[in-house]
Amino acid sequence: MRNIYNFSAGPAMLPDAVLAQAAAEMQDYNGTGQSVLELSHRSADWQDVMDEAELRLRRLMRIPAHYTVLFLQGGASAQFAMVPLNLMRNGKADYLITGLWAKKAYREAMRYGAARVICSSEAQQFTCIPEWNVDLFDPAADYVHLCMNNTIYGTMFHTLPDTGSIPLVADISSCILSQPMDVSRFGLLYAGAQKNMGPAGVTVVIVRSDLLERVRPDCPTLFRYRTHADHGSMYNTPPCYAIYVMLLVLRWLEDTVGGLESMAARNRAKAQLLYDYLDESALFRGTAAIRDRSWMNVPFITGDAETDARFLREASDAGLVNLAGHRTVGGMRASLYNAMPVAGIQRLTECMADFERRYA
Amino acid sequence: MRNIYNFSAGPAMLPDAVLAQAAAEMQDYNGTGQSVLELSHRSADWQDVMDEAELRLRRLMRIPAHYTVLFLQGGASAQFAMVPLNLMRNGKADYLITGLWAKKAYREAMRYGAARVICSSEAQQFTCIPEWNVDLFDPAADYVHLCMNNTIYGTMFHTLPDTGSIPLVADISSCILSQPMDVSRFGLLYAGAQKNMGPAGVTVVIVRSDLLERVRPDCPTLFRYRTHADHGSMYNTPPCYAIYVMLLVLRWLEDTVGGLESMAARNRAKAQLLYDYLDESALFRGTAAIRDRSWMNVPFITGDAETDARFLREASDAGLVNLAGHRTVGGMRASLYNAMPVAGIQRLTECMADFERRYA
Repeated sequence: MRNIYNFSAGPAMLPDAVLAQAAAEMQDYNGTGQSVLELSHRSADWQDVMDEAELRLRRLMRIPAHYTVLFLQGGASAQFAMVPLNLMRNGKADYLITGLWAKKAYREAMRYGAARVICSSEAQQFTCIPEWNVDLFDPAADYVHLCMNNTIYGTMFHTLPDTGSIPLVADISSCILSQPMDVSRFGLLYAGAQKNMGPAGVTVVIVRSDLLERVRPDCPTLFRYRTHADHGSMYNTPPCYAIYVMLLVLRWLEDTVGGLESMAARNRAKAQLLYDYLDESALFRGTAAIRDRSWMNVPFITGDAETDARFLREASDAGLVNLAGHRTVGGMRASLYNAMPVAGIQRLTECMADFERRYA
Repeated sequence: MRNIYNFSAGPAMLPDAVLAQAAAEMQDYNGTGQSVLELSHRSADWQDVMDEAELRLRRLMRIPAHYTVLFLQGGASAQFAMVPLNLMRNGKADYLITGLWAKKAYREAMRYGAARVICSSEAQQFTCIPEWNVDLFDPAADYVHLCMNNTIYGTMFHTLPDTGSIPLVADISSCILSQPMDVSRFGLLYAGAQKNMGPAGVTVVIVRSDLLERVRPDCPTLFRYRTHADHGSMYNTPPCYAIYVMLLVLRWLEDTVGGLESMAARNRAKAQLLYDYLDESALFRGTAAIRDRSWMNVPFITGDAETDARFLREASDAGLVNLAGHRTVGGMRASLYNAMPVAGIQRLTECMADFERRYA
């Protein structure tokens, strides 16, 4: 039982059991007399970590055999360049703009060819997922890109565009492993680990293997998916410790939580608790369009910046930390990733109710 | 006191005190009620880690104020592309080829312009540092590149070429912080942390700030040094845990060891112990040219592959692990990075002497 609940958008909470095991194994991993931090990446003990991490990720997400799983560095921001460098063979890609990160991905792609905006909710301050018209997709596009869950604005794609034979590429940094998803609908998925999967420092890429051949000649060796695919993500030294902690999280998800269906039920219940409170509150209100609400990130405001600031101070004093909204939007944001227990959200809604009684 | 000594070329041993503190703080960092793995990179606690890491690195290495320090991802291999993408403005660079990694750096640079080989010891199987002629350097070159310590072959530049006004760029992955060095002689230095500085997952770049302006237009946003310099290495989420462990190592180096002069004295004595043994042994012999010997990596052989394999098995059974040479050269290699205590080398030479008595 914790005294502090960390609602950060990432790096974020990790399961208590994961932290306990990481602490216990820090000075001697698996009887090797070495710390995980010291293990040679060419040792058998380390290869076992890599293999089990990939196996469990494949099993949890039901990743089909014709997809390649990569553990890379650089975060989702590196993928903004790596996706076009590896896939934009014909110099065309279509982007759905649902927030700051989607826009950054789009802008980076413009450096490599004709990236197009298919739809955008910028005029609505990204409070909703925009409508799209499938006829707008260019059949000759190398891919269609979207950001599945928008961390800053608390929106999520609950249905996906049908892109036909055009590969669909998605940034799933803030929703990976939060619920089952049909990987076969995508050409490529990528996610920084530091929200739902582990600590900062490792990025997962799941790519349909035939797409590895599309790499552009101007792509640096280390930024080619093919380079890493050919070497089991160990062309060079991988970010070992981040991968090890990710493995502990994957074990927790599979063996303790019981897989993504169970995780999804927990996450739905957690988000519902907070949304129900927001929908009845006379003081606080959610900012995202109801039909597009994210289960992972819940932004809310009182409508008055000073009251927001007062609430944030009180919440922090009560052990509910990192509730401030992204610096570009202000207000509050509660990130409810997998490791956030329901008790944390109960404490949050109690704190909100108490504040509301005094200030509404 | 350890039972296992890990002679891996990296990831490698870390000081016992660092591992003990990492274990102790894993579940509650600095009274925050959060693990370091969970700290938001936008929190004040995290900013303190970043600031102290940079401050201590600057103090230890006496980095002049007009140099920028960056904490990046991707390892030295990413730098093989980032160096030309950021500096090769005129499409010309000169490379000194002293091993596999120097060659990889050179090959990657060829993708961006006219990279030239100034000298190479490949014909000597990289067992020495080749002679260079300063007249060969192209005054119009964007930089001259070398790999300061050659992990695989156990050689090191003990003197540096005078490149005049051409910026000197060096990969110092396997010798950073092992002895004092004059940073002002270089335009840019880079090092993966997993040898002398911390765990895999963070790469240090030290660059003369005026060189940040040379970036090529085809450089992706995330691979521009300028991008990271403008955001204190937090343009996107940094590899937090690796940076935190690096900070613990920097504290150990400064507060316990007493700085780089003390560290250099220790390292010289450690290497001398092993070289003295090798020079007198009738069975084992070092493979690097004596005048170019590295203090960090000591490759040696018996001259018979079967005897090498038998020794490696016996050493491993005696708790002396990861002594196998790089897969491209075979034999043995003892990496004696900062955290390897003299006791580890004493145990190694005892094990070698015992083996020699039985098999020479």
